[in-house]
Amino acid sequence: MKLSEIGEFGLIERLQLLIGQRQQAALASSTSSGEPQGLLLGIGDDCAVWRYGDVTQLATTDTLVQDVHFILENTSWQDLGWKALAINLSDIAAMGGIPHSALVTLGLPETAAVEGIEALYEGMLDCGQEYSTLLIGGDIVSAPLFFITVTVVGQASGRIPYPNNVLLRSSGVAGDAIAVTGHLGSSAAGLKLLKAGIHPPALGFALDAHRRPVPRIGTGQLALEAGVRCGMDVSDGLVGDLEKLCAASGMAAEVAVARLPVRQELREHFPQEWVDLALTGGEDYELLLTGPAEVLDAVRERGDVPISIIGRMQPGVPGQVTVRSEDGTIMKMGRSGWDHLRRG
Amino acid sequence: MKLSEIGEFGLIERLQLLIGQRQQAALASSTSSGEPQGLLLGIGDDCAVWRYGDVTQLATTDTLVQDVHFILENTSWQDLGWKALAINLSDIAAMGGIPHSALVTLGLPETAAVEGIEALYEGMLDCGQEYSTLLIGGDIVSAPLFFITVTVVGQASGRIPYPNNVLLRSSGVAGDAIAVTGHLGSSAAGLKLLKAGIHPPALGFALDAHRRPVPRIGTGQLALEAGVRCGMDVSDGLVGDLEKLCAASGMAAEVAVARLPVRQELREHFPQEWVDLALTGGEDYELLLTGPAEVLDAVRERGDVPISIIGRMQPGVPGQVTVRSEDGTIMKMGRSGWDHLRRG
Repeated sequence: MKLSEIGEFGLIERLQLLIGQRQQAALASSTSSGEPQGLLLGIGDDCAVWRYGDVTQLATTDTLVQDVHFILENTSWQDLGWKALAINLSDIAAMGGIPHSALVTLGLPETAAVEGIEALYEGMLDCGQEYSTLLIGGDIVSAPLFFITVTVVGQASGRIPYPNNVLLRSSGVAGDAIAVTGHLGSSAAGLKLLKAGIHPPALGFALDAHRRPVPRIGTGQLALEAGVRCGMDVSDGLVGDLEKLCAASGMAAEVAVARLPVRQELREHFPQEWVDLALTGGEDYELLLTGPAEVLDAVRERGDVPISIIGRMQPGVPGQVTVRSEDGTIMKMGRSGWDHLRRG
Repeated sequence: MKLSEIGEFGLIERLQLLIGQRQQAALASSTSSGEPQGLLLGIGDDCAVWRYGDVTQLATTDTLVQDVHFILENTSWQDLGWKALAINLSDIAAMGGIPHSALVTLGLPETAAVEGIEALYEGMLDCGQEYSTLLIGGDIVSAPLFFITVTVVGQASGRIPYPNNVLLRSSGVAGDAIAVTGHLGSSAAGLKLLKAGIHPPALGFALDAHRRPVPRIGTGQLALEAGVRCGMDVSDGLVGDLEKLCAASGMAAEVAVARLPVRQELREHFPQEWVDLALTGGEDYELLLTGPAEVLDAVRERGDVPISIIGRMQPGVPGQVTVRSEDGTIMKMGRSGWDHLRRG
């Protein structure tokens, strides 16, 4: 069976099953006490989580591959370095965690320009400096094309007692409001502009969002401290990611297009496409949080990042997300994007 | 400047300098106390080392790229999985550490066979089970060719007080005996046999050494507990790796070909090449340890892995390794391998 037949998510499901079966046996046979060697959470959330003594630790890894995740013509090395670290920091933020250190693996062709690689590291160091994350090691390997894998380790805030000290995808409950930080669709719009080779001055924020995503580390910690328990980051697109959160929580959800935080300039420049960009654009690296509306309001008041309530968790088919259009109809993803389905 | 002009090690040197300069500034500006946020050792040893509270933590990462580090025709997926994890565990062993968890990133073409990927994970899970290391997360990305990046985190043994609880490349002193575990050259011989498509029954150990390297985790911990302070693993070839250890320790060294632990069957099958295979073959994943001869003897007596004293650390040009042949002459690496240079 080829990977293309079951897709990346199909493969991940099979591997999760395999790893779960094998390691359950390994754990049972290796520990007489039944203690899971400190592992709290493996594959299936934004970070792996385990305990050493009193400290709850986090680790995550993300990779960018040339011509798959970036095109060298469209990006500067420095921006690429920033982004490679930032998307990992966003996973730490998604758990409400504090990043600590990063390991960096580069796959490089022999023809790579040394100055470019140094600029890439400058971009990573800029991002690391901004978010208190040290580059502590890594590996450089020869490869026919360029790729960069970053692994970030960190810890949960010591201010919240275990086991409530991380935001989990699985902690959502019926009635929770669903909130998102910042604005949606900007990064996907930026990519469209880059591909088209146009740079309208009013849409500079979209190019920035695509090139230099901002990990919401402070907001993740604020949310946890305010009492939020459920969250993830929006990397693959709002609806797809909310479906994962809902599946993990055993819930359904509804979101309202009228409430999506999308910048006015983006709505004006992409009048036909802004809903698609916001619902499925991807690479926003904003936080998706669920909790009581008043708790989410408190997070907004204590931080300096916009937080918008866009919908609600509800009982239903686990993982099912309903999108309600501005005129109250239910929308569905079709071949040419999100479209009205029927009266809701 | 192209990477090919300065090579991988030239690039690493430049990046170490850049990272050192930038992070020194970041550390100085971000910490009023001058404490390095717990970072003990960054780039330049087998693992990065830092402290959380009372625990000394370790992390390392290594990558295998198709057609660079392996050829799919020469390897089974299961062996490849074992090796991808084992070479990282070897870095933990090289610090005398205890591995804990692994994150795995796969780059996969759409045409990859799902059964192959599952076999790859079976191999990793076999290795993880053998050495008490859990697969806790990772990333799967689309890529035009296959690559696998593994990051392993672990900790130093709690039985040795900080700061002597890790083996460092930089801890070698003049007069130290130099020892190596197991046998040298087997993996490189195995690769030669695989490339030639021959499988002499007497050399099965060489194929095994190449396909399923054994991380010396127990020996690394025994060495540390016996009082050894200096070590690394032999991954790029004995002489090249000993040069790195000597450079880090500010020492020179001499090794004697007569003392190299090379299996008899390998000497017989490769009468012209066994010295080269042992000195520069690479991928042995044995431990290189330096310390008082009686301490190294004690490690041998307490463990079940062969340990051979092969030379001595001595004052001299830092990083310079002298190789003495069986007849007492000094050898030098030439175009066709190691050769006699002059009477010693």
